[in-house]
Amino acid sequence: MIYYEDKLKEVKLAYIGGGSRGWAWGLMGDLALTERMSGTVALYDIDRKAAEDNAIIGNKYNEVEGCKSVWKYEVADSLRVALTGADAVIISILPGTFDEMESDVHLPEKYGIYQSVGDTVGAGGVIRALRTIPMFEEIALAIKQYCPNAWVINYTNPMTMCVRTLYKVFPEIKAFGCCHEVFGTQNFLCDVLAEINGIQGLKRSQLKCEVTGVNHFTWLTSVRYQDIDVVESYRAFCKKYADTGYWNHPDSNWMNSSFNSCQMVKMDLFNRFGIIAAAGDRHLAEFCPRDWYLKDPAQVEKWKYGLTTVAWRREDLKRRLQKSADLISGKMSIEIKPSGEEGVKQLEALFGLHEFTTNMNIPNFGQIPNLPLGAVVETNAVLRAGSLKPVFAGDIPSVIYPLIAPIVEEQELAVEAGLERDLDKAFKAFAMDRQITLPKAQAKALFDAMVDNTKAYLQDYFR
Amino acid sequence: MIYYEDKLKEVKLAYIGGGSRGWAWGLMGDLALTERMSGTVALYDIDRKAAEDNAIIGNKYNEVEGCKSVWKYEVADSLRVALTGADAVIISILPGTFDEMESDVHLPEKYGIYQSVGDTVGAGGVIRALRTIPMFEEIALAIKQYCPNAWVINYTNPMTMCVRTLYKVFPEIKAFGCCHEVFGTQNFLCDVLAEINGIQGLKRSQLKCEVTGVNHFTWLTSVRYQDIDVVESYRAFCKKYADTGYWNHPDSNWMNSSFNSCQMVKMDLFNRFGIIAAAGDRHLAEFCPRDWYLKDPAQVEKWKYGLTTVAWRREDLKRRLQKSADLISGKMSIEIKPSGEEGVKQLEALFGLHEFTTNMNIPNFGQIPNLPLGAVVETNAVLRAGSLKPVFAGDIPSVIYPLIAPIVEEQELAVEAGLERDLDKAFKAFAMDRQITLPKAQAKALFDAMVDNTKAYLQDYFR
Amino acid sequence: MIYYEDKLKEVKLAYIGGGSRGWAWGLMGDLALTERMSGTVALYDIDRKAAEDNAIIGNKYNEVEGCKSVWKYEVADSLRVALTGADAVIISILPGTFDEMESDVHLPEKYGIYQSVGDTVGAGGVIRALRTIPMFEEIALAIKQYCPNAWVINYTNPMTMCVRTLYKVFPEIKAFGCCHEVFGTQNFLCDVLAEINGIQGLKRSQLKCEVTGVNHFTWLTSVRYQDIDVVESYRAFCKKYADTGYWNHPDSNWMNSSFNSCQMVKMDLFNRFGIIAAAGDRHLAEFCPRDWYLKDPAQVEKWKYGLTTVAWRREDLKRRLQKSADLISGKMSIEIKPSGEEGVKQLEALFGLHEFTTNMNIPNFGQIPNLPLGAVVETNAVLRAGSLKPVFAGDIPSVIYPLIAPIVEEQELAVEAGLERDLDKAFKAFAMDRQITLPKAQAKALFDAMVDNTKAYLQDYFR
Amino acid sequence: MIYYEDKLKEVKLAYIGGGSRGWAWGLMGDLALTERMSGTVALYDIDRKAAEDNAIIGNKYNEVEGCKSVWKYEVADSLRVALTGADAVIISILPGTFDEMESDVHLPEKYGIYQSVGDTVGAGGVIRALRTIPMFEEIALAIKQYCPNAWVINYTNPMTMCVRTLYKVFPEIKAFGCCHEVFGTQNFLCDVLAEINGIQGLKRSQLKCEVTGVNHFTWLTSVRYQDIDVVESYRAFCKKYADTGYWNHPDSNWMNSSFNSCQMVKMDLFNRFGIIAAAGDRHLAEFCPRDWYLKDPAQVEKWKYGLTTVAWRREDLKRRLQKSADLISGKMSIEIKPSGEEGVKQLEALFGLHEFTTNMNIPNFGQIPNLPLGAVVETNAVLRAGSLKPVFAGDIPSVIYPLIAPIVEEQELAVEAGLERDLDKAFKAFAMDRQITLPKAQAKALFDAMVDNTKAYLQDYFR
Repeated sequence: MIYYEDKLKEVKLAYIGGGSRGWAWGLMGDLALTERMSGTVALYDIDRKAAEDNAIIGNKYNEVEGCKSVWKYEVADSLRVALTGADAVIISILPGTFDEMESDVHLPEKYGIYQSVGDTVGAGGVIRALRTIPMFEEIALAIKQYCPNAWVINYTNPMTMCVRTLYKVFPEIKAFGCCHEVFGTQNFLCDVLAEINGIQGLKRSQLKCEVTGVNHFTWLTSVRYQDIDVVESYRAFCKKYADTGYWNHPDSNWMNSSFNSCQMVKMDLFNRFGIIAAAGDRHLAEFCPRDWYLKDPAQVEKWKYGLTTVAWRREDLKRRLQKSADLISGKMSIEIKPSGEEGVKQLEALFGLHEFTTNMNIPNFGQIPNLPLGAVVETNAVLRAGSLKPVFAGDIPSVIYPLIAPIVEEQELAVEAGLERDLDKAFKAFAMDRQITLPKAQAKALFDAMVDNTKAYLQDYFR
Repeated sequence: MIYYEDKLKEVKLAYIGGGSRGWAWGLMGDLALTERMSGTVALYDIDRKAAEDNAIIGNKYNEVEGCKSVWKYEVADSLRVALTGADAVIISILPGTFDEMESDVHLPEKYGIYQSVGDTVGAGGVIRALRTIPMFEEIALAIKQYCPNAWVINYTNPMTMCVRTLYKVFPEIKAFGCCHEVFGTQNFLCDVLAEINGIQGLKRSQLKCEVTGVNHFTWLTSVRYQDIDVVESYRAFCKKYADTGYWNHPDSNWMNSSFNSCQMVKMDLFNRFGIIAAAGDRHLAEFCPRDWYLKDPAQVEKWKYGLTTVAWRREDLKRRLQKSADLISGKMSIEIKPSGEEGVKQLEALFGLHEFTTNMNIPNFGQIPNLPLGAVVETNAVLRAGSLKPVFAGDIPSVIYPLIAPIVEEQELAVEAGLERDLDKAFKAFAMDRQITLPKAQAKALFDAMVDNTKAYLQDYFR
Repeated sequence: MIYYEDKLKEVKLAYIGGGSRGWAWGLMGDLALTERMSGTVALYDIDRKAAEDNAIIGNKYNEVEGCKSVWKYEVADSLRVALTGADAVIISILPGTFDEMESDVHLPEKYGIYQSVGDTVGAGGVIRALRTIPMFEEIALAIKQYCPNAWVINYTNPMTMCVRTLYKVFPEIKAFGCCHEVFGTQNFLCDVLAEINGIQGLKRSQLKCEVTGVNHFTWLTSVRYQDIDVVESYRAFCKKYADTGYWNHPDSNWMNSSFNSCQMVKMDLFNRFGIIAAAGDRHLAEFCPRDWYLKDPAQVEKWKYGLTTVAWRREDLKRRLQKSADLISGKMSIEIKPSGEEGVKQLEALFGLHEFTTNMNIPNFGQIPNLPLGAVVETNAVLRAGSLKPVFAGDIPSVIYPLIAPIVEEQELAVEAGLERDLDKAFKAFAMDRQITLPKAQAKALFDAMVDNTKAYLQDYFR
Repeated sequence: MIYYEDKLKEVKLAYIGGGSRGWAWGLMGDLALTERMSGTVALYDIDRKAAEDNAIIGNKYNEVEGCKSVWKYEVADSLRVALTGADAVIISILPGTFDEMESDVHLPEKYGIYQSVGDTVGAGGVIRALRTIPMFEEIALAIKQYCPNAWVINYTNPMTMCVRTLYKVFPEIKAFGCCHEVFGTQNFLCDVLAEINGIQGLKRSQLKCEVTGVNHFTWLTSVRYQDIDVVESYRAFCKKYADTGYWNHPDSNWMNSSFNSCQMVKMDLFNRFGIIAAAGDRHLAEFCPRDWYLKDPAQVEKWKYGLTTVAWRREDLKRRLQKSADLISGKMSIEIKPSGEEGVKQLEALFGLHEFTTNMNIPNFGQIPNLPLGAVVETNAVLRAGSLKPVFAGDIPSVIYPLIAPIVEEQELAVEAGLERDLDKAFKAFAMDRQITLPKAQAKALFDAMVDNTKAYLQDYFR
């Protein structure tokens, strides 16, 4: 890449999972809207056709009114081709198919274990990790070989274990994980300020949050707007809405369309602990004792959030495939708008075009002293030219530590199991999960069935 | 106390809870059997009559054949009298009556929560702590005032929170907590060595164990006899007995008479984690997810251990009261025998008569780096003249950390709640317990009922 | 203070040492130039006349062309009056007079110990700390009483020990120490980039530095401009200039006027360690073994930097007193220009008007894991609405740790000595200093003489 | 090795440096005196003749009256032969010859730097480390290959860096370093107790010491005999003798024969810091600022201790060679007596024959929280069957931390330099030493000359 007048040209991005119908289009919009960078995006996907479709769509952005910078989209035939010369790498893959996801999410229901997402922790999270970790091992080794100095953004779940794998395999990697769950809560807090303090029209970036925890179970230990302690606003808000839930109009972004809730889990956690949980309710629920929010579908309904079924995901994919076809055929026209993600802004900062502070998933260098060093945690970090440094977050507060500490070590264990291709160790992590309270024999039966169901992607473990 | 020829005379011990029918008699036997110390024991008890009875019994030991040293037993009218001039203090009290214990142990059953002991963690543990902490606060302040340099041994439960309270109130206190649960497991391992390795007649002190964890949920990360790795012997043993349980003849010591098990919980934990859990099954079960071993009485029976009911305790007390009367009347004669406890041996070492290494409950100065500093943990410690120093134990292993870390912080929170007389904070600890998986409203209802039931001993919290 | 349209009015600042001839005028200029805040400044000084003069001068700024916001300057008769209602407090005092400073700096020369500044570490630093710490104790207690939520900026030396005292006395204080020494090095690095990379006209804020160490012995472990690794530029620069020194035209700011150097100490340290030392040479020299740069005046001259004599300071003060009189009389007119300090910008960020990252002196919460917790260190920190959080800096690199670790603990000891008014302990810190390599008897004689010389300000230590 | 009745037979020891004239004979005596072990000792030495001589001498012990167990001494032709099957390994080598030692110790005198030993820290220590580390790297690799489970005792200096090298090269090694310097101080403290408390005839093992620091700069933070605080006895003793020194009759053990002092350095350090330094004065002096005790030979004489010259060592060697010849010829007869070392007792404990607590040089696992993890430190440790665990020592006290922390990191750096064969890095450690306060150019000239002088043993660094 080449600097000129505080701008960059000939930036080279590699997009692993570049056939994505959704995240990829969001990125295309954000790249079209930046005024300070241009270059090429190499799309790599094991589904080459999907990458080709996205190259066509991506290149159309350059023709649309409102496009501020030109990016050339290319299909790469291999990781090597995609990564060689890359200034930054974006990883957004689906590990396995919806068949595996169906097993991950729904098989445990036979044992009375319901999951609202099933891709982060719990039965689904661990099994998904087992098939994802070897993929990330391969990616990390390729980055080490072809572009060791590139910045690497991961969007894939299970976020914590994916990023941890990258660092375990290539400790010098400059990788971080991004997730919009905190952003969603910040937007919700803008509603809170409107409702309680009468301040309309704030943007989430105007709230100054101190962030701590792990991905999808992230907490805001302080939120300020000017001299307003937003935690107190939230307290008042929860008094009003904790029992009935709060409903605002859903935004139209596809990614969130079926993921709404009435924030009742979040408010209940605040009433329990006095700290703001900052992720969607369906994620938060999976980190808590099962009887709190996920005992059965009736209880979920009572808490007014949804179990994201794989059936819905299959339907949703059909819609997105149709949208892809329509964008290519021109039946649907490209619309350039910000995705709400921060990836492009983050890269600009890391390339030295500006600086800012935001929440990030990176290893614990000591920013959270009472969690294990090396484990991937989510806190604020400062992004500046060539530098990504965590902001010191301090100890996880006592009241929530009992929920967070175990999951961190469970995920550490699961990553070890994945890298060692050790199903016995994987079972130890699995059986320890707070949502899987089964006696050992039943836990083992469930684990074995889930492994068997997804064994097409677990061949490494049987060699 | 006065040294002469490597021995001590005029040692002064203070026994808080000196009316105890059981522990006190064990101590009397051990004191009668030591050849290196003599002196006086001041018995203090809020039940003065009980202390008087024990003074009579204690003084009878001096007349019995086999008594090797003379100890004079006196009743003290106040903490001040008992503590002034004391070289060491022994604390063994019952916080409240069996009525409170009945509430602690059995009230949660209404919500489907069964407890095998109910005095350490879980619903019963937290509520018991609430009434115990103010008592220990008073004791710590009295020790600070009357005998700040005395060694202090605690035997009272909840052990961890009692010792933590002593240190929070008087940080310079020279206190430690002793518990025979690890000893019991060591005895069991002697059986294992007999069974697997054909080595008969070992004493537990011949096994060299590395101990870590918290009281009643203690783990042996290494056990060696000469060059034998006893963990491997145990592995073979568990293969043989894990499914059916192991039954050895119970010893006749009253303290353990109804507390036996077939070690199935212990062996199941070994099969899960590969580390030896070192406490009675009924204690271990309370630290695990409820569905593992404590779902309901039928499951408990299947695991072949017992729920220690308060009804049994009431019966047992009757037997011990009768024994007390019989000892005083002479109907029953004093029998001098070792109790199996280590308190007297520990004091001898701390007074500089010898030295040894054993497991101890003391604050975490860093001996377990991945648990919070200051929290009370159980590891080995070296006892030498005037010095009690923990042996470095290292990090809690990953596989059991998710079970241990939360309980440590939960107990930290409960101690804070007790010292601050803050029932809201106490509820946060209560509602977080791994055994109490109730939704918040139900958890609160249970908490309130348990507090109400025992409010005679919680008056401080309502001022 | 009152928010309106992203701005603040009715801000109340308290200035302790408000009679300062120099720092105070710099602040007045910066306040006049901010477009987003206005309010009042309460000037408190034990020299009331000096505060009155400054109030006159300060109020004149409002009349000058270029003044963008109005600030009202008032004299406060007491700490209580100054602090009550303050939104922020600025501390910039001279502890004692130039007579004491003369003793601090020059008395050790009798023992062959030369000091280039004598206000931070070494003989002068420790003795100065002894008289400063009780003053800061008083200030901290007053802040606790009158404005516990105010932000507190300290500019007084010894910086580390002053800030440490504030936190020891009032642990919840929101205080930090600011120092322009790092800024000076950043300006120097702009010269380096011009010279080596041919990039002209950069401002120091465009360099992204990772900062670590302690005040006046601060190090830059990474410096980037866009994709340029400025450490490599500096390496090339040092090759060119390390032997001869580098001379650029001094800026005209009075504060630095006699403090220039040819950067030879700084470049020698880089050649030794490969890390950029970021303070003036005269400060850096005082943290190193005496024989390196401060053996005697001839060696100092060889290294092309200056010993700041107290004689010079006396002359300089005369000039500044004259300037004060001239500003009041109107003989000299007020000129509004930026001071180069960041205090006003920092307060704006902390009040939530913007956010940024800069170097700060605050306690070590863990941002430097291999230095003692609690000790005051200098690293980057993020300033945002109501929040000042250190950026994680990581371990002090091995090569410079042996120079930094001892001074941190020496200063910890000196602060304890000051707070306990314990001259024996103070001597332990004094005798340990790397610049004071005297045998104990001589060290004691020097210490006693320095204490005696300044005893007017050390009365507390003799009670 | 084979257990029978609480004893061991067929123990196999490997002695690297087995041609030693001195240490080897001490070990032979201790082995002859143990009643619980017998077996073989494989002597390996690059000077094969020396090993052969020692085998002859060693086997003579079995014939002497008073020999309690039979040990067979054999010469091994290679590390492989010596180590294969070894239960324990003893390392006691001389890295280089007295010519190299002469350069280490005396060359720096040209720059005014005097060394009292020159084998631990300072100029001599670093250069000696450079030639020793590759040897220990080879030994560690051989142990890893041939006897990975053996216990390894090191007696070679520089102790800290030798042990650190073993662990860096083979992290699972079961190695520790033993040194009799602490024992010497304990013996001195027995004199103190006799003199001050009137208690005669104590043995050092009766004093219970808490030990912390690094080898040859070790400190006793607590010393107790029964209820006597020996620190207070020492305080009284220092009042009496600090100014004049204390002279007791030297024992006749050859090892200490010319190494005596009047303990004045030790007592001066106590008067400075209030903590007991526990090593010979000539070692202690080398860790302090040069001007304290090592400015020049006159100052050394004033402090009444000796500079151990290499000329003396050469003479001493001649005497020992003669003794060797005389022992072989029978002119001198073998005398069996305890050496005062603990190696045999330590092995017995590690083999499970008993247990005890003593001071050890092992990596910092956290036993000293404020020193770098992994660095080799000297604290108490518990030795039991198969287990060597440090006793938690706590933070190095503030007053001595500034002297200890730098040397730890300097040695860390020197070990890295040795393993990386990096003379530039080695110079960084060298130039940082507290005794080498030279400006960089002079430090470099000295370093280069010392390297050049000893380059026969530094060939690896020039490849």
